Amino acid sequence: MIDLTLIGIGTGDPAQLTLAAIRAMNAADLILLPRKGAEKSDLIAVRRQICADVLTGATRVVAFDLPVRRAQGDYLEAVQDWHDAIAHGWTAQIAAHLPEGGRLALLVWGDPSLYDSSLRIADRLRAQGMDLRVTVIPGISSLQALTAAHAIPLNALADPVVITTGRQIRDHGWPAQADSVAVMLDGGGAFQAIDPAGVHIWWGAYLGMAQQALISGPLAQAGASIVAQRAALRARHGWIMDVYLMRRETK
Amino acid sequence: MIDLTLIGIGTGDPAQLTLAAIRAMNAADLILLPRKGAEKSDLIAVRRQICADVLTGATRVVAFDLPVRRAQGDYLEAVQDWHDAIAHGWTAQIAAHLPEGGRLALLVWGDPSLYDSSLRIADRLRAQGMDLRVTVIPGISSLQALTAAHAIPLNALADPVVITTGRQIRDHGWPAQADSVAVMLDGGGAFQAIDPAGVHIWWGAYLGMAQQALISGPLAQAGASIVAQRAALRARHGWIMDVYLMRRETK
Ligand SMILES: C[S@@+](CC[C@H](N)C(=O)[O-])C[C@H]1O[C@@H](n2cnc3c(N)ncnc32)[C@H](O)[C@@H]1O
Ligand SMILES: C[S@@+](CC[C@H](N)C(=O)[O-])C[C@H]1O[C@@H](n2cnc3c(N)ncnc32)[C@H](O)[C@@H]1O
Repeated sequence: MIDLTLIGIGTGDPAQLTLAAIRAMNAADLILLPRKGAEKSDLIAVRRQICADVLTGATRVVAFDLPVRRAQGDYLEAVQDWHDAIAHGWTAQIAAHLPEGGRLALLVWGDPSLYDSSLRIADRLRAQGMDLRVTVIPGISSLQALTAAHAIPLNALADPVVITTGRQIRDHGWPAQADSVAVMLDGGGAFQAIDPAGVHIWWGAYLGMAQQALISGPLAQAGASIVAQRAALRARHGWIMDVYLMRRETK
Repeated sequence: MIDLTLIGIGTGDPAQLTLAAIRAMNAADLILLPRKGAEKSDLIAVRRQICADVLTGATRVVAFDLPVRRAQGDYLEAVQDWHDAIAHGWTAQIAAHLPEGGRLALLVWGDPSLYDSSLRIADRLRAQGMDLRVTVIPGISSLQALTAAHAIPLNALADPVVITTGRQIRDHGWPAQADSVAVMLDGGGAFQAIDPAGVHIWWGAYLGMAQQALISGPLAQAGASIVAQRAALRARHGWIMDVYLMRRETK
């Protein structure tokens, strides 16, 4: 039996760790640290630092390379294939390091419920016959780090909020029935697809990390600064993760 | 100068506290604990326990009664008046306990960005001329406690999510352009306004607390159990807070 805990660790600042996360890390026999993509070294450094800071017992920490998602072809198909490949990676690590079963933990960036594939990959292992029990420890998401850094509410008073992706904004424009829209997973500048009149934007990159950058203002003005700043930061650090909230004034 | 920190404390389980929250509590001169409504004694007990658990220094803890929102008349007007009254309450407490200024902290239920009025009340104090600096420490929200307890993702793969209120569901039905809808602040059973065909629901009450209750299943069947369970729990405990996620199968 594998007892898997998906532990939300926040978005880079070790002080975002919850007491439950620290306890769950120490209760694990093995923590697997995925290495991936361009942001590889910075993000694995955060995870290693967190392990060094909080582990007090015999928990083993093992890093392994994640497969890379292909950039060509249908997006959802590429994601499904990528999740299959990650599932194989987990299975191989479990066979190598927990052959008799035991308590496995994964440190999930932000919150495990939000645009993260770990729960779907765990489903694949179960579908392949692994005896797997999954526990989730919530963590501070990048969206919460964004609203906290700007000291703003996510929702307007008693109003709905849409959380969506850059791709959705590019394909479908401003979502119906909401005046507040949070955008994640934007390859860059999807807000340019939107009529900026009356829209305010709060943007943040590398939230919780030493490189943290914030911009806010009316989209008509701030949009161009964000595009420029994003390109400059990406060039400087070799990778970027950013998220933003837009609010339409209608009342 | 008042240095106000709004500290997200999660939804009842002290293990949801982040290290940043614990540090911010200890850095404060004064923590104000609001007492309100029917859930009064249970919720203030959680906050008092958290203070007892984590405070190590000279931070003072003062409880004060929140005004009650009137239940009659226009909803938004009643909320605005209520926020005005809370702002007066904060001003009076600050005058009484931090007359020379200092570091004030408020323990905000869940995350301060999500359907919480503290940031709007702070805006009122600033508008009334108080020299106020606001810092926000994110906390685990009830929505994260819900998805973690059920071990489910908030969003379907690469899909948007709407976060909204019971009132909005009752008035406008299922929000456009999203197959995942999270509902907070529901006075009870707004999901009954929705065609249950193909809809799955994950419901949770008192998340993170000893009374925690979970129900999930196809809305067509689970809906009635939730309505019954909610009424029974509310009668037993004298108050209830619940939140749910609904997902429509379309693919
Ligand atoms: C695969 S999703 C994972 C989200 C994560 N589970 C969370 O709770 O924030 C990655 C996206 O999250 C956002 N993100 C994650 N970490 C971030 C950070 N430190 N600063 C800004 N955005 C971040 C970006 O929008 C990025 O494209
Ligand atoms: C005024 S809002 C505050 C939300 C809070 N800021 C958060 O992040 O969860 C109150 C609503 O949050 C939800 N809620 C808060 N605590 C909860 C809990 N422990 N269990 C279930 N729902 C909860 C309910 O929908 C409730 O009506």
